[in-house]
Amino acid sequence: MLVHDDERVNYLLAEEDMRIIQSPSVFSFSLDAVLLARFAYIPYKKGNILDLCTGNGVIPLLLSRRSESRITGVELQHRLYDMAVRNVALNQLEHQIHMIHGDLKDMPKQLGNGPFDAVTCNPPYFPTPSQELINENEHLAIARHEIHCTLEEVVWACSRLVRSGGKVSLVHRPGRLIDLIELFRKYKLEPKRIQFVYPREGKEANMLLIEGVRDGKSDVKIVPPIYIYDEQNEYTETMRKLLYG
Amino acid sequence: MLVHDDERVNYLLAEEDMRIIQSPSVFSFSLDAVLLARFAYIPYKKGNILDLCTGNGVIPLLLSRRSESRITGVELQHRLYDMAVRNVALNQLEHQIHMIHGDLKDMPKQLGNGPFDAVTCNPPYFPTPSQELINENEHLAIARHEIHCTLEEVVWACSRLVRSGGKVSLVHRPGRLIDLIELFRKYKLEPKRIQFVYPREGKEANMLLIEGVRDGKSDVKIVPPIYIYDEQNEYTETMRKLLYG
Repeated sequence: MLVHDDERVNYLLAEEDMRIIQSPSVFSFSLDAVLLARFAYIPYKKGNILDLCTGNGVIPLLLSRRSESRITGVELQHRLYDMAVRNVALNQLEHQIHMIHGDLKDMPKQLGNGPFDAVTCNPPYFPTPSQELINENEHLAIARHEIHCTLEEVVWACSRLVRSGGKVSLVHRPGRLIDLIELFRKYKLEPKRIQFVYPREGKEANMLLIEGVRDGKSDVKIVPPIYIYDEQNEYTETMRKLLYG
Repeated sequence: MLVHDDERVNYLLAEEDMRIIQSPSVFSFSLDAVLLARFAYIPYKKGNILDLCTGNGVIPLLLSRRSESRITGVELQHRLYDMAVRNVALNQLEHQIHMIHGDLKDMPKQLGNGPFDAVTCNPPYFPTPSQELINENEHLAIARHEIHCTLEEVVWACSRLVRSGGKVSLVHRPGRLIDLIELFRKYKLEPKRIQFVYPREGKEANMLLIEGVRDGKSDVKIVPPIYIYDEQNEYTETMRKLLYG
């Protein structure tokens, strides 16, 4: 197994027997991915799951612990795609997880309309940065900013790739809630479940998880919130369970 | 001061020197109104405030404690309008609060476009009920159900009546969040602040407060949630302060 100089092999938190290759200079998974992998409803036995903007494949790895379904990951950056492929091999999950190097905008043409029961995506959060910032670290810039895909393209692709009645789950910043809801409705993904994540009590939410059902009926539930830190600045019990099992 | 047989005069909770006439068979104010009156940003000195679907006038009464602005209430049902007028008199607030008996759909024509700095509304929550239910208690049915105005008509009226840059605050059920956001954007009220109210920890939200700014820029904040009851089934400290001062 090739591990590059700037990469590390870490344990995947609560999954004690899982390991993951990542790189601080290229891509490290974050709390957002862990929360999305826990939030998403996925088929447990038979089914097809897709993870767009998969990065080093952290979400497919985590989902494989909760499901026997086939999982496909799509990543645009070759450097990250390569890391994701090695992560699948490192955990001997080649029979379940399949990685595609490609642009999510091409996936409906490549994979067809609606072949998936569930789609997850942890998309780039930030508007397009300056050329200077892109030059500084292109890999991080592409993973974090809407350089190669806008939020609308992400939602469009999710909607095309999920079957009618299937579920699309995204993590994003609360500041984009209104745009997300507008785009979900535009592409026939009816929001059904939203969860807000607050850094601690008394603070504004800094993360949101949203699930839409393709062609679903209008009725959304706001499920109980998650707090990351307690008053002693330590992870709350909920977060400790999630991260360390 | 005339108080009808089916009416009671109650203290207005935390406002110890305020009293309010209400009637269990016609209209009693609820937690929703108290939470909306606290949530809404309003001008403190000079300004014009409008409360649509004002019922017995509970929101104008509560707002008068936080603002010297002129407050107008609009109520469709004559029986409730009459109660609201008596509530203004009972609290000697005729110099500040003015009640209109009329349909909110006619208000843009009657009051003009954009004369208000802030608009509040606690609209009917539920879809149109059966004729049987309406016959049973018409007053309660009209106050609670979308019989005389749909959610779209409410949002349209708010948008027409608030000035550009002015604020519209509504309370509603979380199940209508997606519709609310779609209608707010349709009528150029950009959602800027949302608060969810949960009955207790670990439960889904059962109330939402939303503020939109007419012609505002896209950027919403999800402010810290409110819990109504604690683990002992008693009001949380936040609620006790709000209700009893």
